[in-house]
Amino acid sequence: MTHPISRFPIPSLDAIPEDVRTRILNVQEKSGFVPNVFLLLARRPDEFRAFFAYHDALMDKAGGLSKAEREMIVVATSAANHCQYCVVAHGAILRIRAKHPLVADQVAINYRKADITPRQSAMLDFAMKVALESHEIEQADFDALAPHGFDEEDGWDIAAIAAFFGMSNRIANATNTRPNDEFYTMGR
Amino acid sequence: MTHPISRFPIPSLDAIPEDVRTRILNVQEKSGFVPNVFLLLARRPDEFRAFFAYHDALMDKAGGLSKAEREMIVVATSAANHCQYCVVAHGAILRIRAKHPLVADQVAINYRKADITPRQSAMLDFAMKVALESHEIEQADFDALAPHGFDEEDGWDIAAIAAFFGMSNRIANATNTRPNDEFYTMGR
Amino acid sequence: MTHPISRFPIPSLDAIPEDVRTRILNVQEKSGFVPNVFLLLARRPDEFRAFFAYHDALMDKAGGLSKAEREMIVVATSAANHCQYCVVAHGAILRIRAKHPLVADQVAINYRKADITPRQSAMLDFAMKVALESHEIEQADFDALAPHGFDEEDGWDIAAIAAFFGMSNRIANATNTRPNDEFYTMGR
Amino acid sequence: MTHPISRFPIPSLDAIPEDVRTRILNVQEKSGFVPNVFLLLARRPDEFRAFFAYHDALMDKAGGLSKAEREMIVVATSAANHCQYCVVAHGAILRIRAKHPLVADQVAINYRKADITPRQSAMLDFAMKVALESHEIEQADFDALAPHGFDEEDGWDIAAIAAFFGMSNRIANATNTRPNDEFYTMGR
Amino acid sequence: MTHPISRFPIPSLDAIPEDVRTRILNVQEKSGFVPNVFLLLARRPDEFRAFFAYHDALMDKAGGLSKAEREMIVVATSAANHCQYCVVAHGAILRIRAKHPLVADQVAINYRKADITPRQSAMLDFAMKVALESHEIEQADFDALAPHGFDEEDGWDIAAIAAFFGMSNRIANATNTRPNDEFYTMGR
Amino acid sequence: MTHPISRFPIPSLDAIPEDVRTRILNVQEKSGFVPNVFLLLARRPDEFRAFFAYHDALMDKAGGLSKAEREMIVVATSAANHCQYCVVAHGAILRIRAKHPLVADQVAINYRKADITPRQSAMLDFAMKVALESHEIEQADFDALAPHGFDEEDGWDIAAIAAFFGMSNRIANATNTRPNDEFYTMGR
Repeated sequence: MTHPISRFPIPSLDAIPEDVRTRILNVQEKSGFVPNVFLLLARRPDEFRAFFAYHDALMDKAGGLSKAEREMIVVATSAANHCQYCVVAHGAILRIRAKHPLVADQVAINYRKADITPRQSAMLDFAMKVALESHEIEQADFDALAPHGFDEEDGWDIAAIAAFFGMSNRIANATNTRPNDEFYTMGR
Repeated sequence: MTHPISRFPIPSLDAIPEDVRTRILNVQEKSGFVPNVFLLLARRPDEFRAFFAYHDALMDKAGGLSKAEREMIVVATSAANHCQYCVVAHGAILRIRAKHPLVADQVAINYRKADITPRQSAMLDFAMKVALESHEIEQADFDALAPHGFDEEDGWDIAAIAAFFGMSNRIANATNTRPNDEFYTMGR
Repeated sequence: MTHPISRFPIPSLDAIPEDVRTRILNVQEKSGFVPNVFLLLARRPDEFRAFFAYHDALMDKAGGLSKAEREMIVVATSAANHCQYCVVAHGAILRIRAKHPLVADQVAINYRKADITPRQSAMLDFAMKVALESHEIEQADFDALAPHGFDEEDGWDIAAIAAFFGMSNRIANATNTRPNDEFYTMGR
Repeated sequence: MTHPISRFPIPSLDAIPEDVRTRILNVQEKSGFVPNVFLLLARRPDEFRAFFAYHDALMDKAGGLSKAEREMIVVATSAANHCQYCVVAHGAILRIRAKHPLVADQVAINYRKADITPRQSAMLDFAMKVALESHEIEQADFDALAPHGFDEEDGWDIAAIAAFFGMSNRIANATNTRPNDEFYTMGR
Repeated sequence: MTHPISRFPIPSLDAIPEDVRTRILNVQEKSGFVPNVFLLLARRPDEFRAFFAYHDALMDKAGGLSKAEREMIVVATSAANHCQYCVVAHGAILRIRAKHPLVADQVAINYRKADITPRQSAMLDFAMKVALESHEIEQADFDALAPHGFDEEDGWDIAAIAAFFGMSNRIANATNTRPNDEFYTMGR
Repeated sequence: MTHPISRFPIPSLDAIPEDVRTRILNVQEKSGFVPNVFLLLARRPDEFRAFFAYHDALMDKAGGLSKAEREMIVVATSAANHCQYCVVAHGAILRIRAKHPLVADQVAINYRKADITPRQSAMLDFAMKVALESHEIEQADFDALAPHGFDEEDGWDIAAIAAFFGMSNRIANATNTRPNDEFYTMGR
């Protein structure tokens, strides 16, 4: 019983606007395959453009968080939201960014027992609170980040990444988007 | 004890890139004041641009959902996430769009008892499931929308609006962004 | 789709015992309208009498809590119980008692971010614990009230108000009692 | 480590108003001891009077619910609220009213597996929904009572009993009121 | 409406392997009756043997926990899992082991308000965390046991007892196994 | 930051009773390494023997469930309990038994979206209810298994496997037992 890419039909590359198709072809060239979320969102070009602009603004920007740490936030919060697409796809990216083949599975199941640093553990405590009970975030939560070298802007970044992927998780869950098979073994 | 606009400092208009400032001045001209979320996000211009591009792609597009219905989704799911900014600000917009001074408070407290139609009630059942347990969304949830005139694309819209404001709620909660005083009485 | 006053039929004033009718006429004279909960409970005169006797014993007595603070407890806990009647009706009374047009909506959505004092915040922490997990109340919860000037009798009052309105919330929810339209704009 | 009657001091009988004392002496004569909740509430005579007036209006009135069924509601919902006083005291009364020495413990632990009738099971489904998620009560919940011979007024009674003891549970929990030792073995 | 011993049929003593039958006859001789869980598990002799071997390894071994304390863990965690069989049967054993006729009901309803020592309260805090959110157990939880005289091996014992009866609770719940009537009054 | 095998010290092979050591050496010969749970439990030989006797009675017996299906139950319920050891170790066994390199990760994150059959989906619905709310299991849950070819004994097996690994999960979580690195890539 192999599920299709999504509950929604996927557009043909011909039917996609030029700029969207270009981004898709670029990721294909770089990764060797097109991650399914690109194909899914391509059926809504305006949402595609906004989604990836937001993604890049958070994930590719400079700042106190390493790229591996950002992916760690994605994996932990996406697992809490039971999002198959994001845990599998970003789990692969996390393994590669962290150069650590075990960490993605550990973080997805229970980050409290993962092979991560106290700094990363504090970061994930904060990210999980944003994901699961953001209305209880208070000054003390930001204060708990400071001893680990995270300033207020880093706090924003952690919160924004948890929030953005909380959106992605809900879209992937509602559209039933499956991760590409390639992700499962990358970086192991 | 009046709280400030946000836990984060607000940039001066001079320090904001041209395109961002223009959008802010436009909303000010149209509404008579600048909603605080514009000021907050202006400190992160790339996020500002992506946020409002996404917002417009979902809230201003054509489709089966009326503008009042879209705001209804925002108010119901933002209340579930205990987001003061979004409930107050979009509650005002909902009152205006629906030409119904009571509906926003009703939907925020318990949409099951609001003065809304069975169609809107089904729409909010779906939106709340996306907001609170999206991993359990299944075909039956889309099927329950159909008798009320919602097709699959409308289902996407409902899910995407609930997901996008789930992100906004978390950002507003983490940054402790307060709604402008003006919103509380608009449309009553 | 305007819902009726309640799932249950409302008695005519003629059919109501003298003392109950008198109280109803008094509130009408004072407020300019009869709050629906009076009409609903009038169909059960013994329960009407006990309900308002209890209400007055808690809300009109002397003690360390101001009248605005008592209403604040009602609004916060009734929102947690998703009781439309109590949030709207007591939200109005709170705005008037506190002479603060914004505070009721703020407290209903997320009291942690409302424009209230640290004393009131501690009071609401206690009240919410009584409303949501009273079996975990312990000495430390009373101790946390003391620095804010609440003695043990004030602790009783906070708990009793949260408990009494927890009852009201459940009755209003089960009977589907709608708040009068007048409440929505009072005190704004 | 035997806990005292309550976190709050208990008044001496002399210090209690005449009518309150009379009710206490009556229950003592009838039961052979004074249930602790009478002593606790006696320190607040107005609340004592309202509490027992409400109690009697719900528990001693005529109607479709047998006295045993009313106590069954108290035990099931009080167990859900983890109220030691009410489960133990009303468990005793339930055993006596139902002439069934096992039913109170069964209902307290898991009413779904108790030796009760389908009618009583439907009654407790309704009562537990009032106790735990009253905002989701809808017409279908009343409809589910009808085949078991419960009319709308019986529905009110079930809801009101669950609501009233939800208040009692919260007061007993916050005041840490212990049940009298006598209750544990009554009716076994 | 008296429920049968279990949803599953109970084997006749003749049909049970020798060693299983011997254990059953021994418990009958010792207790005067055969606890229903022995009859239930006898239909699966290999599971019977493993279950009681595990039970004995945890409940009959030497160590820092008294026999009454071990039963206290069983009662508290089984109540959290709403297991009728284990709360009633082990409640009886707890009353006998602790020589305290009230403690089992108290611990089942809300151990925080039971007549137990601070040491026992700390033990149950730990056991309940294992029962309900074991993935959050951390070094601090073991540390909180130390001042009460529990070493690391005692921590293991508490965790293992909570875990083993978590299994028993689920089996008894799924098979709908009723406690023997005899248990209800033992030790009162 | 690589965590040790467990919060508890691991015994040397010399210090382990003969029968326990033999089982450990057998698994080492068969698998090429010793799964950490064997080493952990070896410090408690009686518990070791009972644990594996129970394990074998459920996982190696004849019956309607395939070996892959049994492992599927373990992975789904262990993920719900956030048990790193069991998800990783039994995820490996599931991949091998099911000859399906993707299914373990899918089932762990959200079994509702895994590439499994409707029969397996019904099996996991039942297993998850046993794991998470066993007190609500009723006849209807067994009835839902029947159309998929599961008889009552299969229902027992599903429940018992979910219950047994619920115990294992709690022990592994409390002892902080890490899965062997070898498991992560087996069967991919």
